[in-house]
Amino acid sequence: MTGIDDLPIRDELRGKSPYGAPQLDVPVQLNTNENPYPLPEPLVERIAERVREAARGLNRYPDRDAIELRTELATYLTRTGKHPVALENVWAANGSNEVIQQLLQTFGGPGRTAIGFEPSYSMHGLIARGTGTGWLSGPRNDDFTIDVAAAATAIAEHRPDVVFVTSPNNPTGTAVDAETVLALYEAAQAAKPSLVVIDEAYVEFSHRPSLLPLLEGRPHLVVSRTMSKAFGAAGLRLGYLAAHRAVVDAVQLVRLPYHLSAVTQATALAALEHTDTLLKYVEQLKEERDRLVAELRAIGYEVTESDANFVQFGRFEDAHAMWQKILDRGVLVRDNGVPGRLRVTAGTPEENDAFLDAVRALKKEHSS
Amino acid sequence: MTGIDDLPIRDELRGKSPYGAPQLDVPVQLNTNENPYPLPEPLVERIAERVREAARGLNRYPDRDAIELRTELATYLTRTGKHPVALENVWAANGSNEVIQQLLQTFGGPGRTAIGFEPSYSMHGLIARGTGTGWLSGPRNDDFTIDVAAAATAIAEHRPDVVFVTSPNNPTGTAVDAETVLALYEAAQAAKPSLVVIDEAYVEFSHRPSLLPLLEGRPHLVVSRTMSKAFGAAGLRLGYLAAHRAVVDAVQLVRLPYHLSAVTQATALAALEHTDTLLKYVEQLKEERDRLVAELRAIGYEVTESDANFVQFGRFEDAHAMWQKILDRGVLVRDNGVPGRLRVTAGTPEENDAFLDAVRALKKEHSS
Repeated sequence: MTGIDDLPIRDELRGKSPYGAPQLDVPVQLNTNENPYPLPEPLVERIAERVREAARGLNRYPDRDAIELRTELATYLTRTGKHPVALENVWAANGSNEVIQQLLQTFGGPGRTAIGFEPSYSMHGLIARGTGTGWLSGPRNDDFTIDVAAAATAIAEHRPDVVFVTSPNNPTGTAVDAETVLALYEAAQAAKPSLVVIDEAYVEFSHRPSLLPLLEGRPHLVVSRTMSKAFGAAGLRLGYLAAHRAVVDAVQLVRLPYHLSAVTQATALAALEHTDTLLKYVEQLKEERDRLVAELRAIGYEVTESDANFVQFGRFEDAHAMWQKILDRGVLVRDNGVPGRLRVTAGTPEENDAFLDAVRALKKEHSS
Repeated sequence: MTGIDDLPIRDELRGKSPYGAPQLDVPVQLNTNENPYPLPEPLVERIAERVREAARGLNRYPDRDAIELRTELATYLTRTGKHPVALENVWAANGSNEVIQQLLQTFGGPGRTAIGFEPSYSMHGLIARGTGTGWLSGPRNDDFTIDVAAAATAIAEHRPDVVFVTSPNNPTGTAVDAETVLALYEAAQAAKPSLVVIDEAYVEFSHRPSLLPLLEGRPHLVVSRTMSKAFGAAGLRLGYLAAHRAVVDAVQLVRLPYHLSAVTQATALAALEHTDTLLKYVEQLKEERDRLVAELRAIGYEVTESDANFVQFGRFEDAHAMWQKILDRGVLVRDNGVPGRLRVTAGTPEENDAFLDAVRALKKEHSS
């Protein structure tokens, strides 16, 4: 029987497994940072309406440049990001993963390197591997913040072509301040110059404002975003970026033509019409996130500051064993491989109560 | 003003333009091999219904493995391809371009090469470039068929890691026979072994049957397909492949997680429910394609045999000037850069009449 390793695949893929959290059928799923609130019914109807219209022209290729969608995304960023963003500054793709892949195909690739400060979003390194970009693991402090001096030294030493800064960081939760990003940007320009990508997938949940205003006068800076979290649309796969228009022009050299389907564009446009409603859910989730932090601390866990819709907590001698114990109580959280820590997504109040009950009971069990 | 070339992009991208046919607003558009028939209204309604249902769970990530969709695609291939295909043999992505990109990320990439027999589908070479795969241009005969001996020699000499065979070929139109593919497969196995990809994007329009039965006992063979043409769904961006299950397992090492959105999966499933209706349009288009070939020959043009929904015709001293003259008469055809030739998509009978009237008039003009 022929298996993967009998095929002439690339050597660096041998023995690897596909990325992805276990998809288990459990009552309370708090493992992939999904928004727990289904889209409101008027938005569901609007999506059906917009897609019906798009389906009538589905025999034709979609708008290759997604002009209407990028214009609406620019409007959203301008309104919420305290920085004017125009159509020419925005690019969209099938999830922020594809945005990052296109950036690495353009600015990374064979013979080039990218750096991230780990633990961070593990897809940055995996997409680097998938695009032939060398991956460098940069340092973090013990409290998971970025040590600016150590990070700048790593950039000066390795001269990476692409620098990733995730803010708020995933899986740890804390946002990065503007001064840190500016220091890393300066270090990266002095070293190479290289492209600096701020991954703001969770920024709508942050106590700190978006770093979009830093784009001003910095053509090698990119801010990436997604509709998966704040817009409650993980199933839509719509990621986007804001940057200097030259960056937007450049990624079009590697994008697959017509990469964004007519149904994806129609659905995203419908969701953007309901921005205000969706951002109200974000406010509820921020409150729940803050409650999770407070309660976990009250129970006696060590909790990392969170600006996201999830919370990192610990410490555990054996995090994976704890993950299993929580799962045995019907709650699925995430073991991201950070030693001694687990990550829980902020769900509905009821889901969070179920999670808190589970970890409270486990704490008592352990203490008794 | 910062432009693309002021950015630290990869050297091989410098001076390049994004791929894509001109999107011009012209009465008769016969340039991108789209299906001219809009989806029937019952299917449009079914898409709206399926997407409405998917939208209710859009806050959750989509089925990462697209099980239901791949099962239905397998059923379609089994029914029409005279070869049993199961879920485990099928993989789907955002257009066959993404399928090909995933194949090249897995089996090509830095330090490896791919070959195609040109002129052929130009995205093969462009996606090779985008994935860091070296590109080799293999030979064709003057009549655009593949010279088996010359092609096998090129494979033996260059030992490519991936071999593309497009059947029916685009932009020339002719299908490749099974004997030719078998000879190239044997040559590729003897040389490396390498992966052989048969791009069957247009196979539903062919006089010859699909080459799917060749998959039996050949784990390094892949057949790629699309719903853009026969299913009249270019706007959907749904490509897929059939291969040994080990190949399907292997591409999952490089696929972006959750690459296929819930709305894409829902829309594709709706279209597959209407397969029989959509294949009736294919029969009409085959008749129109045959009519285009006959009429163009009657007018006095040189026409390449076509098994696709388009026809290559010539010869012209200056193909681009002829393209412009046809455009001036309100008909957009394609100049693919094949010397002396143009390509016209089979449209509705009315669109084809408009095209034939235009080229008939131009022929007279030229002769008088």
